Amino acid sequence: MVGAVAFDSVRTPYGKAENILGGAATYLAVTASWFAPVRVVAVVGDDLGEEHLRVFQDRAIDTAGLVRTSGKTFRWSGEYTGDMNEARTLETQLNVFEQFSPTLPCSYLDSEFVFLGNIDPALQLHVRRQLTRARLVGLDSMNYWIKGTPEGLKRALAEVDILVINETEARMLSGIFNLKKAAEAIRKLGPTTLVIKRGEHGVTLFSEGGIFSAPAFPLDEVRDPTGAGDSFAGGFMGYLAKAGDLSDAELRRAVIYGSVMASFAVEEFGLSRLLRLTPKEIEARYCGFKALTQFDA
Amino acid sequence: MVGAVAFDSVRTPYGKAENILGGAATYLAVTASWFAPVRVVAVVGDDLGEEHLRVFQDRAIDTAGLVRTSGKTFRWSGEYTGDMNEARTLETQLNVFEQFSPTLPCSYLDSEFVFLGNIDPALQLHVRRQLTRARLVGLDSMNYWIKGTPEGLKRALAEVDILVINETEARMLSGIFNLKKAAEAIRKLGPTTLVIKRGEHGVTLFSEGGIFSAPAFPLDEVRDPTGAGDSFAGGFMGYLAKAGDLSDAELRRAVIYGSVMASFAVEEFGLSRLLRLTPKEIEARYCGFKALTQFDA
Repeated sequence: MVGAVAFDSVRTPYGKAENILGGAATYLAVTASWFAPVRVVAVVGDDLGEEHLRVFQDRAIDTAGLVRTSGKTFRWSGEYTGDMNEARTLETQLNVFEQFSPTLPCSYLDSEFVFLGNIDPALQLHVRRQLTRARLVGLDSMNYWIKGTPEGLKRALAEVDILVINETEARMLSGIFNLKKAAEAIRKLGPTTLVIKRGEHGVTLFSEGGIFSAPAFPLDEVRDPTGAGDSFAGGFMGYLAKAGDLSDAELRRAVIYGSVMASFAVEEFGLSRLLRLTPKEIEARYCGFKALTQFDA
Repeated sequence: MVGAVAFDSVRTPYGKAENILGGAATYLAVTASWFAPVRVVAVVGDDLGEEHLRVFQDRAIDTAGLVRTSGKTFRWSGEYTGDMNEARTLETQLNVFEQFSPTLPCSYLDSEFVFLGNIDPALQLHVRRQLTRARLVGLDSMNYWIKGTPEGLKRALAEVDILVINETEARMLSGIFNLKKAAEAIRKLGPTTLVIKRGEHGVTLFSEGGIFSAPAFPLDEVRDPTGAGDSFAGGFMGYLAKAGDLSDAELRRAVIYGSVMASFAVEEFGLSRLLRLTPKEIEARYCGFKALTQFDA
């Protein structure tokens, strides 16, 4: 799991949190760790204390690829209002992330399932090329890179299997409004599988097995959407790593497990809900998705 | 099937159509007629010709409750731009509809499945109360009535079983943003079953059997969204009338048949696609919905 480890400050209609542990790599690693052993690649500053490292250690996440350097850890602050489908970024401080270009530890080089969280596509490609034994590589990106470094993003996309991206970004990347046609165009750029995240409306998977659409889980309260997309991707990749099989049936189950993890992530601020899950709760919500979607069984 | 028969003028990014047969009652009747015998209640002017009447007759739709009066038929013109999720109304002429308050023909009074299309709630209630043998009464409404005649709408809702409404309207009617909580509040107003239409994101059913969420069918082209909601409701009620059983399993299948009919409706302007369907196409798309949604079967 590659991406940022960050300190997030978040405000939503339900309250606020200051400088809590977050970042794509953190959400990816924590959610995937409920399914399979996880290795994390990121850079942190000397403001990251033992109590933060313990979050990874407690989940048995391998931190050999977590580079500690002098300076401050990446910081993001944002707020959610109205339908909470999109954050308004108030401030981004790249800090130690600015100079990050990791050489992976030898112990990581046999990794078979790789997810490149939302960072500079050149950095995603740099990591991806070190992982020559990867069976499945996923990538997340965002409007910032689609507009800012389209060529770099296309080079990275040419070398991955799965793109996980939100609806607006899929339209922006392809220049096509119709999602089915947008998906066809994007799949020609490299990834055979495309997962389009639709926020409160769920997720649609486009793959060689056809199209699969899953709703979001109806929740009583969505307190903090931060990390929902990364939690989806972590659950999705973690489940596939556990299954070890890339059939369409397993891809669909992975979409549901990803949706399960995203639904837990948003119930509370930051990582709180994700850290005190139980396998039983995860299975119960998976069954909840069956009850929510099945007809004519 | 109660509602307006109208002449629609529609402009979308795919083209335009002028004065084509439309209106809630028409879409409801035509789509339901693929599943069960249909009776229609509406008023039309003397500008409605034999060629328009033939649309009903060809589908064996009972027009005993179609009142012909002097004057012009209801007319609506609108356009769809951007994501085409909502029409911008350019003009509405109520015409003969303004004075409509039907006494149903005797031959209609044993109707068991009733759908009250989007018209003045007082008129919906006036019709509903004549149908004392109804087993299942559905109702559609819109922002215009939610804002304009909230008390009249609540009186009508108290006497129906199913409300079919779109997402924004569900939030407006309940005053609650969270859809799960909005649904709970709305179900306390009368309808035990609530269907929330989410446009290109599908449909969510809230009933005694729990929550069921179905995606919209991914289409290559959405040429004209006019009538999508009514086509959903027509397919939904038509299927329930055919099944004759109001179990949760049948309600879920009805949601899918409604979604099937809506997906056909939007493929072409006006009624075109709905009039040249075949039962085989309907079944094939129903199977398409299974392929789109099933996992862990």
